[in-house]
Amino acid sequence: MITLSLIGIGTGNLDHVTLAAVRALNNADLILLPRKGEAKSDLIDLRRLLCERLLEAPVTTKIVEFDLPSRDGRKDYLGAVDDWHAAIASVWAQLMDEHLPNGGRVGMLVWGDPSLYDSSLRITQRLSAAGKQIDVEVVPGITSLQVLTAEHKIPLNALAEPVHITTGRRLRECGWPSDAATVAVMLDSGGAFATLPQDDTYIWWGAYLGMEKQCLINGWLSDVGDQIIQRRAELRDTHGWIMDIYLLAKQPLL
Amino acid sequence: MITLSLIGIGTGNLDHVTLAAVRALNNADLILLPRKGEAKSDLIDLRRLLCERLLEAPVTTKIVEFDLPSRDGRKDYLGAVDDWHAAIASVWAQLMDEHLPNGGRVGMLVWGDPSLYDSSLRITQRLSAAGKQIDVEVVPGITSLQVLTAEHKIPLNALAEPVHITTGRRLRECGWPSDAATVAVMLDSGGAFATLPQDDTYIWWGAYLGMEKQCLINGWLSDVGDQIIQRRAELRDTHGWIMDIYLLAKQPLL
Ligand SMILES: C[S@@+](CC[C@H](N)C(=O)[O-])C[C@H]1O[C@@H](n2cnc3c(N)ncnc32)[C@H](O)[C@@H]1O
Ligand SMILES: C[S@@+](CC[C@H](N)C(=O)[O-])C[C@H]1O[C@@H](n2cnc3c(N)ncnc32)[C@H](O)[C@@H]1O
Repeated sequence: MITLSLIGIGTGNLDHVTLAAVRALNNADLILLPRKGEAKSDLIDLRRLLCERLLEAPVTTKIVEFDLPSRDGRKDYLGAVDDWHAAIASVWAQLMDEHLPNGGRVGMLVWGDPSLYDSSLRITQRLSAAGKQIDVEVVPGITSLQVLTAEHKIPLNALAEPVHITTGRRLRECGWPSDAATVAVMLDSGGAFATLPQDDTYIWWGAYLGMEKQCLINGWLSDVGDQIIQRRAELRDTHGWIMDIYLLAKQPLL
Repeated sequence: MITLSLIGIGTGNLDHVTLAAVRALNNADLILLPRKGEAKSDLIDLRRLLCERLLEAPVTTKIVEFDLPSRDGRKDYLGAVDDWHAAIASVWAQLMDEHLPNGGRVGMLVWGDPSLYDSSLRITQRLSAAGKQIDVEVVPGITSLQVLTAEHKIPLNALAEPVHITTGRRLRECGWPSDAATVAVMLDSGGAFATLPQDDTYIWWGAYLGMEKQCLINGWLSDVGDQIIQRRAELRDTHGWIMDIYLLAKQPLL
């Protein structure tokens, strides 16, 4: 029997880890750390550092790094994601069989919170469906969206108003969602906000949130939209990768 | 000069506190703890316990409890909220003047995360607008929505789909938001989901999340809707107060 802890670790600031996450880390027999390729090596470094800092000596936990299969870039997005999840599930299963043949506790470090645009729960579900005996435990973590609002010192919602959380792809396709006063956008490959009315939309943008290279910009789209697009391109060139997120509103939030 | 830390503390499980929150607590010269009346005395107890557990000895931090002004129940909701925020701001200002006449660091314990349906940032804004020199710092905390998804072991969003976060009031008024595959509902005075189609809406419901008395129910509304309404009423009778939250979807999430 395997107990799998999906441990939310926040998005770059090690101090955003919760006491429950520290405990779950220390209770694990095996911690699996995904490597996402050269360009994003900052991210595996951060996970290594987290283990170093938070595991209590003497460290009895086995830490195993593995190469995350990569998703093919084909047009059929959902099909590609499905294949990708299947590939990851099979790597997880192999690693568990190899390193915990008699069962035990596996800790998986999940970026941000496991509930938000993350596939760990779906991959786990696949393992269960394939007959693997897995007991899952989810440890919540601070999301990139919360770091965005904390660093800009703004609320997520306008007073008593709804919030919409969406992707860059969806924002491009569907425009401003009808019932929301504020819209948070994640997973944008760049500049989806350029499709919106520029004069009456305010943006709070953040990249590399929680990290040393964190970058924040806010203002009306007509004033800062181009600046964000340019800065994003520069930053991605400099660092080899970028993660950014933003909140949009039709009026100031405070 | 006052530095005010709005410290997200999670929603009942003390282990959901982050290392950054522990640090912010210990750096404060003054911690202000709101009392919300007899019925909700569990909540002040929890804040007291948090301070006891997390402040490092010898405790040099001054802890001051105060009665939170209550909001009048008049029809004009936004007007009532406005007056209420003004009353709270004036109490905060008084307490800061009295206990930190020469300035210093104030810690304010915020339920969940300060960005989500919380007024602390708006109240702080009022103090600044009234001329008080305040430097604000926001420490993110685990939200009730994250504890809901963690305890049910579900994602917040359907794969690559948007999420809508709204209030019970709004759900009643506007129905299912047009562009969302999942809808999270907070601040529901009870049973707003009863206004939706019962057969093809699935609910994951949670009350007192993170606490010992936590209660979870999930299923199609046609199967569990009435049960939730009844259970909610019983629990509120038993404990004198209730906080609950739920996620809705048109199809299973995993
Ligand atoms: C696959 S999703 C994972 C989100 C994660 N589970 C969370 O809770 O934040 C990746 C997206 O999250 C956002 N993101 C994650 N970490 C970020 C960071 N440190 N700074 C800015 N955006 C970030 C970006 O929008 C990115 O495209
Ligand atoms: C004024 S809002 C504050 C939300 C808080 N800032 C957060 O991050 O969760 C209060 C609402 O949050 C939800 N809530 C807060 N704590 C909860 C808990 N422990 N269990 C269930 N719902 C909770 C309920 O929907 C409640 O009506």
